[in-house]
Amino acid sequence: MIQRFDRLQVELPPPSDPDPNGASAVQELMGGRFGEMSTLMNYLFQSINFRGRQSARPFYDLVANIAAEEWGHVELVGATINTMLTGASPTDDGKAPKASLAGVKDARYHHHYLVGGQGALPADSHGKPWNGDYVFSSGDLIEDLTHNFFLETGARSGKLRVYEMVEHPAARALTGYLLVRGGVHQVAYARALERLTGADMTKLFPSPNIPTEKIPECQPHIKKGLHTKLYRFSPTDYHELSAVFNGPHPETGEELTVDDTMPEGAPWHDLPPQPAVFAPDYAPEDIAEIAKKLREAAGLPKEPTGEVANDPSGVVGRVKDKLS
Amino acid sequence: MIQRFDRLQVELPPPSDPDPNGASAVQELMGGRFGEMSTLMNYLFQSINFRGRQSARPFYDLVANIAAEEWGHVELVGATINTMLTGASPTDDGKAPKASLAGVKDARYHHHYLVGGQGALPADSHGKPWNGDYVFSSGDLIEDLTHNFFLETGARSGKLRVYEMVEHPAARALTGYLLVRGGVHQVAYARALERLTGADMTKLFPSPNIPTEKIPECQPHIKKGLHTKLYRFSPTDYHELSAVFNGPHPETGEELTVDDTMPEGAPWHDLPPQPAVFAPDYAPEDIAEIAKKLREAAGLPKEPTGEVANDPSGVVGRVKDKLS
Amino acid sequence: MIQRFDRLQVELPPPSDPDPNGASAVQELMGGRFGEMSTLMNYLFQSINFRGRQSARPFYDLVANIAAEEWGHVELVGATINTMLTGASPTDDGKAPKASLAGVKDARYHHHYLVGGQGALPADSHGKPWNGDYVFSSGDLIEDLTHNFFLETGARSGKLRVYEMVEHPAARALTGYLLVRGGVHQVAYARALERLTGADMTKLFPSPNIPTEKIPECQPHIKKGLHTKLYRFSPTDYHELSAVFNGPHPETGEELTVDDTMPEGAPWHDLPPQPAVFAPDYAPEDIAEIAKKLREAAGLPKEPTGEVANDPSGVVGRVKDKLS
Amino acid sequence: MIQRFDRLQVELPPPSDPDPNGASAVQELMGGRFGEMSTLMNYLFQSINFRGRQSARPFYDLVANIAAEEWGHVELVGATINTMLTGASPTDDGKAPKASLAGVKDARYHHHYLVGGQGALPADSHGKPWNGDYVFSSGDLIEDLTHNFFLETGARSGKLRVYEMVEHPAARALTGYLLVRGGVHQVAYARALERLTGADMTKLFPSPNIPTEKIPECQPHIKKGLHTKLYRFSPTDYHELSAVFNGPHPETGEELTVDDTMPEGAPWHDLPPQPAVFAPDYAPEDIAEIAKKLREAAGLPKEPTGEVANDPSGVVGRVKDKLS
Amino acid sequence: MIQRFDRLQVELPPPSDPDPNGASAVQELMGGRFGEMSTLMNYLFQSINFRGRQSARPFYDLVANIAAEEWGHVELVGATINTMLTGASPTDDGKAPKASLAGVKDARYHHHYLVGGQGALPADSHGKPWNGDYVFSSGDLIEDLTHNFFLETGARSGKLRVYEMVEHPAARALTGYLLVRGGVHQVAYARALERLTGADMTKLFPSPNIPTEKIPECQPHIKKGLHTKLYRFSPTDYHELSAVFNGPHPETGEELTVDDTMPEGAPWHDLPPQPAVFAPDYAPEDIAEIAKKLREAAGLPKEPTGEVANDPSGVVGRVKDKLS
Amino acid sequence: MIQRFDRLQVELPPPSDPDPNGASAVQELMGGRFGEMSTLMNYLFQSINFRGRQSARPFYDLVANIAAEEWGHVELVGATINTMLTGASPTDDGKAPKASLAGVKDARYHHHYLVGGQGALPADSHGKPWNGDYVFSSGDLIEDLTHNFFLETGARSGKLRVYEMVEHPAARALTGYLLVRGGVHQVAYARALERLTGADMTKLFPSPNIPTEKIPECQPHIKKGLHTKLYRFSPTDYHELSAVFNGPHPETGEELTVDDTMPEGAPWHDLPPQPAVFAPDYAPEDIAEIAKKLREAAGLPKEPTGEVANDPSGVVGRVKDKLS
Repeated sequence: MIQRFDRLQVELPPPSDPDPNGASAVQELMGGRFGEMSTLMNYLFQSINFRGRQSARPFYDLVANIAAEEWGHVELVGATINTMLTGASPTDDGKAPKASLAGVKDARYHHHYLVGGQGALPADSHGKPWNGDYVFSSGDLIEDLTHNFFLETGARSGKLRVYEMVEHPAARALTGYLLVRGGVHQVAYARALERLTGADMTKLFPSPNIPTEKIPECQPHIKKGLHTKLYRFSPTDYHELSAVFNGPHPETGEELTVDDTMPEGAPWHDLPPQPAVFAPDYAPEDIAEIAKKLREAAGLPKEPTGEVANDPSGVVGRVKDKLS
Repeated sequence: MIQRFDRLQVELPPPSDPDPNGASAVQELMGGRFGEMSTLMNYLFQSINFRGRQSARPFYDLVANIAAEEWGHVELVGATINTMLTGASPTDDGKAPKASLAGVKDARYHHHYLVGGQGALPADSHGKPWNGDYVFSSGDLIEDLTHNFFLETGARSGKLRVYEMVEHPAARALTGYLLVRGGVHQVAYARALERLTGADMTKLFPSPNIPTEKIPECQPHIKKGLHTKLYRFSPTDYHELSAVFNGPHPETGEELTVDDTMPEGAPWHDLPPQPAVFAPDYAPEDIAEIAKKLREAAGLPKEPTGEVANDPSGVVGRVKDKLS
Repeated sequence: MIQRFDRLQVELPPPSDPDPNGASAVQELMGGRFGEMSTLMNYLFQSINFRGRQSARPFYDLVANIAAEEWGHVELVGATINTMLTGASPTDDGKAPKASLAGVKDARYHHHYLVGGQGALPADSHGKPWNGDYVFSSGDLIEDLTHNFFLETGARSGKLRVYEMVEHPAARALTGYLLVRGGVHQVAYARALERLTGADMTKLFPSPNIPTEKIPECQPHIKKGLHTKLYRFSPTDYHELSAVFNGPHPETGEELTVDDTMPEGAPWHDLPPQPAVFAPDYAPEDIAEIAKKLREAAGLPKEPTGEVANDPSGVVGRVKDKLS
Repeated sequence: MIQRFDRLQVELPPPSDPDPNGASAVQELMGGRFGEMSTLMNYLFQSINFRGRQSARPFYDLVANIAAEEWGHVELVGATINTMLTGASPTDDGKAPKASLAGVKDARYHHHYLVGGQGALPADSHGKPWNGDYVFSSGDLIEDLTHNFFLETGARSGKLRVYEMVEHPAARALTGYLLVRGGVHQVAYARALERLTGADMTKLFPSPNIPTEKIPECQPHIKKGLHTKLYRFSPTDYHELSAVFNGPHPETGEELTVDDTMPEGAPWHDLPPQPAVFAPDYAPEDIAEIAKKLREAAGLPKEPTGEVANDPSGVVGRVKDKLS
Repeated sequence: MIQRFDRLQVELPPPSDPDPNGASAVQELMGGRFGEMSTLMNYLFQSINFRGRQSARPFYDLVANIAAEEWGHVELVGATINTMLTGASPTDDGKAPKASLAGVKDARYHHHYLVGGQGALPADSHGKPWNGDYVFSSGDLIEDLTHNFFLETGARSGKLRVYEMVEHPAARALTGYLLVRGGVHQVAYARALERLTGADMTKLFPSPNIPTEKIPECQPHIKKGLHTKLYRFSPTDYHELSAVFNGPHPETGEELTVDDTMPEGAPWHDLPPQPAVFAPDYAPEDIAEIAKKLREAAGLPKEPTGEVANDPSGVVGRVKDKLS
Repeated sequence: MIQRFDRLQVELPPPSDPDPNGASAVQELMGGRFGEMSTLMNYLFQSINFRGRQSARPFYDLVANIAAEEWGHVELVGATINTMLTGASPTDDGKAPKASLAGVKDARYHHHYLVGGQGALPADSHGKPWNGDYVFSSGDLIEDLTHNFFLETGARSGKLRVYEMVEHPAARALTGYLLVRGGVHQVAYARALERLTGADMTKLFPSPNIPTEKIPECQPHIKKGLHTKLYRFSPTDYHELSAVFNGPHPETGEELTVDDTMPEGAPWHDLPPQPAVFAPDYAPEDIAEIAKKLREAAGLPKEPTGEVANDPSGVVGRVKDKLS
């Protein structure tokens, strides 16, 4: 089971110019075969299905723990898409019957507006829903690890290509971070295979054949050493990561380490309403008022108790002024 | 982001007689349209995509927090399937070239053996992979909540029907627990709708039209009050649940409450290897030996550090004897 | 647009011994590539999309009118499946928490019980949902007709094979009727192609290579001449059928005719509740009582105004006694 | 079974400027999860599968009758798409080997030209085929009605968003009409739930949170009272609608009524051929000539007997002149 | 079983201006329902599944042999797409972290860049993967042939429409050739049906209703007689083609003939690397060097032994200079 | 392009007792994610899409050539399924209206009878159609090879599990052969990766962790050295295989070799008609007679010119007697 934290694993930039077709490309990192839903679900199922886990505890711990990190990656990809779609219809004056979505009629990805609320969908860059066929959970540990190494390789490839296609700052912040963290997982699974079989897979790195240090948006994370450490995403469990994840990094030679804490992360941006798609409503100010009353009735503070990265702007902000 | 705990939300019975076709029915609760993957992913996406969340914090907290509980439900369904499949091929002497899978040639669900490792798959009872079309995240809060109420209704229906079809003790323990917890979520979303619109949905309960108290396997959980409380699955966030989840339970009239801790849960059973499907290997004892050495080399204790419900039996157990 | 009649195109037998796996085979005639949903949707879309229809009126009328007949075929297939599933769980004493679905745990088609209410689903014999890829609507009249001739050939083949697999009286009544009516459509599309191109396709009949008169369950319909006539399913339109559908039947030489009325048909059986799947409820007698009161409040007769083939039996019947 | 009428439920404007990407958006209302194929097929299957229908006649009649109206909605969406695609390739001089489709090479929806004949397809705005997973037919009446209320809510949302995205007159005429009629169905299912359970769902309206009267294209229909009446789409059956559909409209307070006739409707436009896609042929004038001869041979009038909204123009019209 | 030849069945032009959206249209001819994967797989499965083949040898030989030709069509479509995508990102200076894919962010088909390596995918023009539902293999010879005639009709239609949409020289060379060869297969299956049943299908030609001789890009092939001859794609087998494929061509009256050899064909173009998508690598010159050394170590000639249409240009060419 | 030979790569046993559910398991090797359609299509697409192939010729030749072998594997899997289904309905007296398919009403795989002609389908063991998502063709050579190694690992795993589930002699002959040949491909791709990167993957073998020599049905092929040699499936091309495929076998240490010929193979069994499914017809003797006449009219020998493994028996045989 899990506990959830209302934070992102890394800071993302605030909304800027909307980038509808860029957002459609980023969907590949969400719901594509090699997207973050795939890494999350592969490792979740492999950990659930792990037989004889006590005897193979270091490997079980590795897979089970990386699954937890991937949840945060799904959140990051979603937050990026949402940021890029903010403003694709007017944020302050886009209410029906105005033709507020006419500006995205020629966009590649109609579902962002017709099905979602200018928000991320569990689908790839062509709108194909993610599906369970992307999960490989054979029960055979070596086979599963072989798959995972391949999966992380494909995932790294996808991130690089989205990087090259989309220059929006949110997309760049996302891919810079994910390339570094995905690289760690790629190493982790290679190392696990090496430990089990004795094979030396070191020379397969980097794959695709470009070191992350060449990517400017990766560099800050590399400087902080994020490319060599595995976080332990549990206050109580998965202690045996270090039995597998150790030795020199295959590209840099630095020592691999396990961090017993999770990243500090950063608060989410509270993205403004998009009334054209009724997100969260045609009249979000009404919801704000109801929420306030409910909060009071429940003995909670007048102001929202959650932290967000921004002082919310737009409609919601003005409503707050009016209500206070 | 999340932290993961190596425990199940509720105790499950150990493996007993295998029940291959029963396990195929339980798959519906995993990867069917109304299975636990659907509840998990719906609430995860809705929380990621929530616009103006600060102003609508009680509702955001509600959805975001229930998402966290659903992760544990996915684990429970998976553990149940795996328990029911244990022994469907011999656990101690099923190695190729023996025809150890001949006994399941007529089973409904070949993928459990040919694709999975006698383990759960992200698919429904007919083997159809779960897919992202099952996620509804429109951005419109009232619409999303209307959906969620419907989803929990359909989910409750599915659990009841699996209950009636499958008498295996693990399936019964599972459905007994999920019916109670799903009922809480059904109430939570109805209450959220009521708070936002003023509609009175109380009389729609129970739906389907049978109170959980009639189900023997629900009764222990009802006695503990699990039908009236919402756990807060976060040590730090989602404090505003109580602004929505309060008032009388629509069926029993008892007061709804928020529990600021998550359930204590129970350790997983360490299910024995199934060598016919190489789970975790043709020779799991080799993996055990390697793991032991890795553990020592990393300065970890000789014995596995994780807790499991059973003293592992079968092949793995014997190996431990031999190695110690 | 359409008007609907609360009757089936042909009489079906009442429920007898349930036949779960037979019902799963009949699903192929519902949601398979060559099932009745396919014929219905192909002709509906082709009629909607028909360009230059005024100039090609006889062909437009033909396609548009056959679409209307296919709606009734979908109803017939559904009614057959439902008849065959009646009694697969107890009809009078199957309420949870009884294990009333344990008897169908080994059935091929779990969705009939876990997803449907012992009722037909828009899916094929393996549970795969029908999908729009089965529709061919190219806009090119000759191409569409070539497709339709092929579609009816494949559909006839499917009906024959279900006939050979399933001996349940409802399945036999269904396939006997559909083979005759599908044969008429096959002739109609062949004739249309002949009229447009001059090709002589007469000798392609019968395809598959067995005349319907060899099938005992076809014979009563053949005796009534149903193999040579096209019904006009409209009180006001589609008058030009006879411009295409005429000349000798390619197998028997009898004259093809157009009947300006639709079949008289027969009332549906009112199939009894299946409380194990809550169809229509855990306590159907409550619904009956509510319905009665609503009827009275609306100034309608005390007794239901619709006609059904049976004096409803089982739970519902007893309730009626009690209430009257 | 049904009878079909060669009319649309409401008048649509004639072709004007083509709008290829607008037409791709309208596809969502055809084959999307919440499109008209979904409403049609949900209610058709629920009516077929209704157990104990005699005892629950008012509810059966309601579902069965709305199914019939939805057929007409599918026709309307199709006619709209076809209107919007008319002229996307030349209508009078677009024959191969000319590159007459070069102008739509960058359009979002290649299938309109490469698979369809500049005509509607049973697919959504991304080209994903409609599929049977969109049908919910659980057998449990309350569950099915809960679903239907949700479905109509989602459908209304989709119509509003397409309205905001597409300003083409045909799309606006369509969405204006469907918003009003879908609103009636939403009320009908809410009322049915209220009747069965006693819950008061009135305050959930409107959902999404904008009254149809704000939409200019809805206003003419509201003036005619179409927002408060349910048509009975049967000359002989479904008399018990009024037992459920009565009382005040939840938004306006006006009395809900049942109209025992169906709408008068309007004739279809006879859309001109698009020879680039061979619809209906490379040389439609040949088909016209054949049709004329067939008509005569069958003793039918010289001129087509069907009514269309336009005096057909373009190629076909000229051919008529030439032939007469 | 097969032997493969490193040649295309017909010469294609070298890369010129890239045409990303044109390439997306050509995908329909690859992985669409009527694309070359469909013809290949239909005939392959029908030949594998042919029962009583010895007694029906001429028909078996026909289907089995055409399957072999279709492999070459798949290659041609793929080569065309790849040619059209060459240069969509820079071929000589497109390495990450440059935004070398920014130019295709608005292209219809992101998968060409994010999933493929600027290469063909087994999917249609909307990115939907080809699937086995497109294969019809009923076992009934007449039914299968009826299908094949329809399939070739639909395929011809698709080719014509792509021809009209895409003016890129590679697409035109492709469709010109395939229209001629597909036409031969259409005739072959019609003839087979005629032989088996006696029906005269001659007048159904051409379908769609335009003779290939009107298409300029078809004319060179017609001049060579490619429209009247069936190649025998086997040095040893399928001798009985001529028993079916004979008589006059239905459009031109020329005699149909069997050619006991396969086409001479032409070498492939060696398309240049696209480093933005790592095809074949970030540093293709390294691979070239490794290949050279491996070749030498194996006693093979220094220079590649395979033939290509071009003296490879771009990066690879320069590398060769540098290495020699 | 290819030439086809009317032979199987290895001899299969003749039909014996039918094994319907065994045949459904073997479908996984046909159309499952790791089935032979996947290996065929992956390597076909990778070879088509190979950029800079001249400079990387040894790797191109390797992939392109293995694609050719996989065609033969698809044939073998199909022939096996067909063999196992022979006799599942009567072969000599199963004509409609007899209920000749009643015996397979409870079989897992209705599509074998209702859709196919007791023949193989391009689908997996649950009836899910193979689809193009199973193809990985990234353009990046190292990534593609990493995938291929993983694919062959998964494929080997599937073959082993089918081996353990199905004891029918045809299934055993099939899996014995494919395990050996798949093992060669697994080695080939590992070796290619080693050549390109310098990594040593030798110790990953065998994976799954059981040497093929333990499988009795593999042993005859190992004795012939089939586990160490790569066939060159081209009379003229792909000469550079040996530059990659050399060195010691990772399990046995024997030298890897390239065989410049393809296997001699064996003729197919001419499987008898199954009239219940009209394969190849209701009256196959009529087809035989027609074929004979066509053969004569074309100047071909009286007797079929193709070779089959058996003197055809059953209906067809008797017909031959009667006709001669």
